[in-house]
Amino acid sequence: MRLQPLSLCSHRLALALALAAPFTLLPTAPLHAAPAAAARQGDTAPVLVTAAQWQQMASEGSRYPWFAKEQARTQKSLQKMMKAGIDVPVPKDKGGGRTHEQHKRNYQALLAAGTLYRLTGDKAYVAYSRDMLLQYAKLYPTLGPHPEGRGQIPGRVFWQVLNDSVWLVNAIQGYDAIRDALSPQDRQTIESQVFRPMAEFLASEPKNYDQIHNHATWAVAATGMTGYVLRDRELVEKSLRGSRKDDQFGFLRQIDLLFSPDGYYEEGPYYQRYALAPFLLFANAIERNEPQRKIFARRDGVLLKAVDVLVQTSYDGLFFPINDAILDKGIDTEELVAGIGIAYAQAGDDRLLSVAQQQKRLLLSPEGLQVAQALAANKAKPFDYRPMLLRDGPDGERGGLAILRMGGERGQALVQKDTMQGMGHGHFDKLNWLFYDNGNAVVTDYGAARFLNVEAKRGGIYLAENRSWAKQTVAHNTLVVNEQSHFKGDWKRGEELAPQVRFFQADADTQIASATMRDAYPGVVFTRTQALLRHPELGLPVVLDLLQVHGDKAARYDLPLHFNGHIVTTGFEAEHFPAQRPVLGSDNGYQHLWLDARSKAGSEPRTLAWLLDGRFYTYRFGSSAPAQALLVESGANDPEFNLRREPALLQRVEGQKDVTFFSVLEPHGEYNGTAEYVHGADSRIKQIIRTRGNDAEVLELRLASGARIALGVADDSDAKGEHSVTVDGHAYRWSGSHARMDRSKGEAR
Amino acid sequence: MRLQPLSLCSHRLALALALAAPFTLLPTAPLHAAPAAAARQGDTAPVLVTAAQWQQMASEGSRYPWFAKEQARTQKSLQKMMKAGIDVPVPKDKGGGRTHEQHKRNYQALLAAGTLYRLTGDKAYVAYSRDMLLQYAKLYPTLGPHPEGRGQIPGRVFWQVLNDSVWLVNAIQGYDAIRDALSPQDRQTIESQVFRPMAEFLASEPKNYDQIHNHATWAVAATGMTGYVLRDRELVEKSLRGSRKDDQFGFLRQIDLLFSPDGYYEEGPYYQRYALAPFLLFANAIERNEPQRKIFARRDGVLLKAVDVLVQTSYDGLFFPINDAILDKGIDTEELVAGIGIAYAQAGDDRLLSVAQQQKRLLLSPEGLQVAQALAANKAKPFDYRPMLLRDGPDGERGGLAILRMGGERGQALVQKDTMQGMGHGHFDKLNWLFYDNGNAVVTDYGAARFLNVEAKRGGIYLAENRSWAKQTVAHNTLVVNEQSHFKGDWKRGEELAPQVRFFQADADTQIASATMRDAYPGVVFTRTQALLRHPELGLPVVLDLLQVHGDKAARYDLPLHFNGHIVTTGFEAEHFPAQRPVLGSDNGYQHLWLDARSKAGSEPRTLAWLLDGRFYTYRFGSSAPAQALLVESGANDPEFNLRREPALLQRVEGQKDVTFFSVLEPHGEYNGTAEYVHGADSRIKQIIRTRGNDAEVLELRLASGARIALGVADDSDAKGEHSVTVDGHAYRWSGSHARMDRSKGEAR
Repeated sequence: MRLQPLSLCSHRLALALALAAPFTLLPTAPLHAAPAAAARQGDTAPVLVTAAQWQQMASEGSRYPWFAKEQARTQKSLQKMMKAGIDVPVPKDKGGGRTHEQHKRNYQALLAAGTLYRLTGDKAYVAYSRDMLLQYAKLYPTLGPHPEGRGQIPGRVFWQVLNDSVWLVNAIQGYDAIRDALSPQDRQTIESQVFRPMAEFLASEPKNYDQIHNHATWAVAATGMTGYVLRDRELVEKSLRGSRKDDQFGFLRQIDLLFSPDGYYEEGPYYQRYALAPFLLFANAIERNEPQRKIFARRDGVLLKAVDVLVQTSYDGLFFPINDAILDKGIDTEELVAGIGIAYAQAGDDRLLSVAQQQKRLLLSPEGLQVAQALAANKAKPFDYRPMLLRDGPDGERGGLAILRMGGERGQALVQKDTMQGMGHGHFDKLNWLFYDNGNAVVTDYGAARFLNVEAKRGGIYLAENRSWAKQTVAHNTLVVNEQSHFKGDWKRGEELAPQVRFFQADADTQIASATMRDAYPGVVFTRTQALLRHPELGLPVVLDLLQVHGDKAARYDLPLHFNGHIVTTGFEAEHFPAQRPVLGSDNGYQHLWLDARSKAGSEPRTLAWLLDGRFYTYRFGSSAPAQALLVESGANDPEFNLRREPALLQRVEGQKDVTFFSVLEPHGEYNGTAEYVHGADSRIKQIIRTRGNDAEVLELRLASGARIALGVADDSDAKGEHSVTVDGHAYRWSGSHARMDRSKGEAR
Repeated sequence: MRLQPLSLCSHRLALALALAAPFTLLPTAPLHAAPAAAARQGDTAPVLVTAAQWQQMASEGSRYPWFAKEQARTQKSLQKMMKAGIDVPVPKDKGGGRTHEQHKRNYQALLAAGTLYRLTGDKAYVAYSRDMLLQYAKLYPTLGPHPEGRGQIPGRVFWQVLNDSVWLVNAIQGYDAIRDALSPQDRQTIESQVFRPMAEFLASEPKNYDQIHNHATWAVAATGMTGYVLRDRELVEKSLRGSRKDDQFGFLRQIDLLFSPDGYYEEGPYYQRYALAPFLLFANAIERNEPQRKIFARRDGVLLKAVDVLVQTSYDGLFFPINDAILDKGIDTEELVAGIGIAYAQAGDDRLLSVAQQQKRLLLSPEGLQVAQALAANKAKPFDYRPMLLRDGPDGERGGLAILRMGGERGQALVQKDTMQGMGHGHFDKLNWLFYDNGNAVVTDYGAARFLNVEAKRGGIYLAENRSWAKQTVAHNTLVVNEQSHFKGDWKRGEELAPQVRFFQADADTQIASATMRDAYPGVVFTRTQALLRHPELGLPVVLDLLQVHGDKAARYDLPLHFNGHIVTTGFEAEHFPAQRPVLGSDNGYQHLWLDARSKAGSEPRTLAWLLDGRFYTYRFGSSAPAQALLVESGANDPEFNLRREPALLQRVEGQKDVTFFSVLEPHGEYNGTAEYVHGADSRIKQIIRTRGNDAEVLELRLASGARIALGVADDSDAKGEHSVTVDGHAYRWSGSHARMDRSKGEAR
């Protein structure tokens, strides 16, 4: 089954931190010892976190610094709101506007108040929540579609129904905590005027509810958690199995289809962390209330894998910014705070604790308490960042994200993007790559052209430049044919075609990933093989890149490399444009590139070296047919200064059907401004040589030391074939898709 | 007396950390208990650090983690060198070359070996030093002028004599520590063939020795410390009083003339930290050996003031990059590690300890031990970053550096550069300013165009762009007349003329600095008054800037503002050049500016807002005569990619004799990408109004809250005059040079 191609468009939501706790629908739990005198009967007892769990947090939380600090922070921010007084305005504004922001603050306050009531016993929190909810009880029944209604289904409290779902996910948790402290009459009013009609509204519209899309996950999480709290079995069932209870939609089906078997979410990590939140919150509620469902074990534990994937798809704390992504989003995002807490409680993996440390936050929940206790006991271990292939698609057969890694969290990481399109947030960058080293993005992805929530930048939504630049192929490090983007920039067409992963291998010294893309351009097939190689005569691992292109007619092939750093050496002759800076092209992103320098076409490998954060990077690149090297910078045709200005190198081959691009990127040396020294400023590689055999080719690196690194790559990825390629009289022979065949100085002589 | 206009040109020196210790020329100190059996008589005992002090460090050092760690680090790096074997090559290469770097490593090794011998008692260190020095004893007498001799006086071991001085400063300290462990014969050989002839060489050339310049300070420090070690009273005297011993030159005279009374050094902090090192090292040796000289009390303690000044002239750990400066140089520089240790030992100010903590290093010396002990006792207090006027010139009457500060180390800092030219390293930027906020440089200084020690960038020396761009006036935030730089770019002319400080005041809520510059351009006088103002209805302090220009003929006046951040709003209409980017001008730095946008000339104040690191900056600017607003970026005519590409706003007034530029820069709001919220994105200032009276003017800020901030500035800086300026019917009256006269919303109605 194909994923529903809906686009997730607005994310002005701050997910308040909280989650759900065990209860059974026929309560057999002992009567709790909550501080509230009103708690008299099981059917008002809290169910998302049990009274006993609350009690434990209330009595023990203060002993654990992380928990106590989080509580103090929550207290401080809520008290500020309480002092300001309750404000439940008639919905009027769109995202970012006053009424929108106020209703957001209100759900955060309801959650915080419920939590703090349980942790402190202070009835003032109950009174505050009750009064606010009674105001909602007056307001909500009067509401029709939001006046600024957006998308197919307008919300009632907010402009889009997604935000209404988020409101309910948060508010119901806060309500669960105070429910037994309310008078029966107040409960009746609040439930019949707010929570029930809200849940019914969310579930009533199949376009919202019966979907395989993360917006619908927010909706079913909201109604499902409400169902548990209101002891409404029917609502829980619908949430789990779809409004028709036929398992075509609903939460369980979403788990089965929205993640790949490896826990990858096709839009990429930026949206994965957002999509993940309702999955984990609702799953935690299910696990507590219906543990027999073994929800966290479903599909081989895919929800917990998805948490691990989110951390694995980050570098130095920030998510790989593939597709529409804001660059500064990372593992400290609130959604992943919830994720780490829940995953730790489920799996007990102490390596998650070091992520919690980086997040500097936790949940005021039983899971958060577990994290705080483990941290206090110094159990944290380093997170295990490791190379992996994350298969994409519900069956894991639609490409994948290849991650090559050496040297841990701030070492080398190469990301090859062989994934599905990523729906409306996908970029047109099949077989794109990113490279990280020394704590920095070195080969970069622009991410999204958007200033999230910055009103002055088109209200904070995606800018026009997101389409005209950020999504375009030329804004990425992959093949552009005839100045067009992949799929002619049509993401629905992109959804139909996925790359094919040829092979993936990750050893200590040799890590390699290869994939083929067909028909991103009609009649063009391109295969990219990249390797991260360690060698004792190199200071640091290097990246080999081999991009083989076959077309059915002569074309212009461009291969951009967006790099981060200050150019140190341009190792080729070029015409410069120092005094009038021309624009490279007219459309598909080319209109945003200034041209600074252009070499003549040539076939010899060239070099470009740059300096970034005290380290040198030498890029040595060549092609099978004569290529020009162009130095460009983003920022042309940008009168509103919406783009960052970033440099790129572009290799251009004209009038060929087939071409192979090959290169090596070598991090080396150190520039230390404090101690005023430089060492290793010279590359240790003398030459890169590509040699084509009958059915395979070899990339050979000749090191200054005399040693040679050789990588053989066969056209056929079959593990059995025998291959031979002769380079300068030496026959490299191997069997299978690829092989590393280094020679020492003595052997190479 | 005028400072000697020599230029300090090459700084490929890593100053090894070490210093000197007490001894008297007629040794009355008790026999030391050094581990060396060879120590038999007072006249070979160590004098730069006494045997007793070494003993104390040896026995106590390991108890203090900071000291122990430094020792371990030193040990590790020396052992690596010892393993590689001694290498004393015939001098051949210039700076950065192999023989140059080897001789540098050698003096570091000599110092480390002497230190470690004393700290561990291990004779292997003595043997290593001795063998190396005996090799120098063979080599040195054979040396004439260095084949790559640079500057007026070539060195012998190095290309420039400065490096020879630095060699001696370091090596003599190491030698002092091992001297009593050597045989009399080795001592005789080493002293007669290395140390004596080296000191004589340095002292023999008045162009090197008898100068008021920091190069000469290195020379006298080297000979003076050598004099103490060799018990050569004559050499010490020459070092202190000049080669003719007439007090015209020498160390004491250098102390009197090279620093201003406030401890400021005219080249600016980047060179101050370099110049300071030999002052402190030699002073420390003098203090120990001749405490009766009270060297640290000389000129009211100017040497210790200079240490304080170095820290005060930094922001978030990095020096203000005025004049030729590398941006990443800061308080962790090795010279200041020595400085903080010595200053702490002298003054015992616990606030220096927090600087030591940031440095993460200390000295293996009695002073370092004191720092380590104090840190272990948790004595560190925050350093007191405070507003101050640092007068410039030997008498403090040649301008100064005004620092306005609120909010501590990472709060707001405004630097107004009203200093002297700064000799050959000075930039042509009279009354330039810098602004810092939130841990970032917001209004920037380019610093030097140089990739220190990066061979591929012209051997690491100053690039041609340092002259063509970095030094030019348009590369700074100050007045440019007719596209010329100050003094027509002639620094010797610049040395003759200094700004005049009009007034300086620094209260909690109002800090203000004002200065006048005459004849940076013939016939042009300009006065700049800047204030940092706090107001309860503003989120953060704001900067007011008033620049009054009087010329004797009509001219083109440009006022650049180099800012750091991404433009959010351009609050004015402008012609854009999105498709062909022109260059702004042809010379004096203008050839390096691309033109992106240009408004028509107008008189109404305009705005420009940008976003930097989660904070918004709104700049509201106007002028008394119609001005164009130009948006530009550096990087034109830069075929070698030597320049960073940075944006600037340029206000341009044509054909006027007089003009006043006025503006307010307001930091506000917060963009949080992690939690996805923005607040305070709107400026709280509605208007800036400048009104001219008879002999004064008033800048009025009208806040969104209704309140008004008013600053009156009189033409005459006399404290007594009465002034009145009427703005919209309200008469602002004050006496003296300036006054802040805010009005609340009620009063302003």
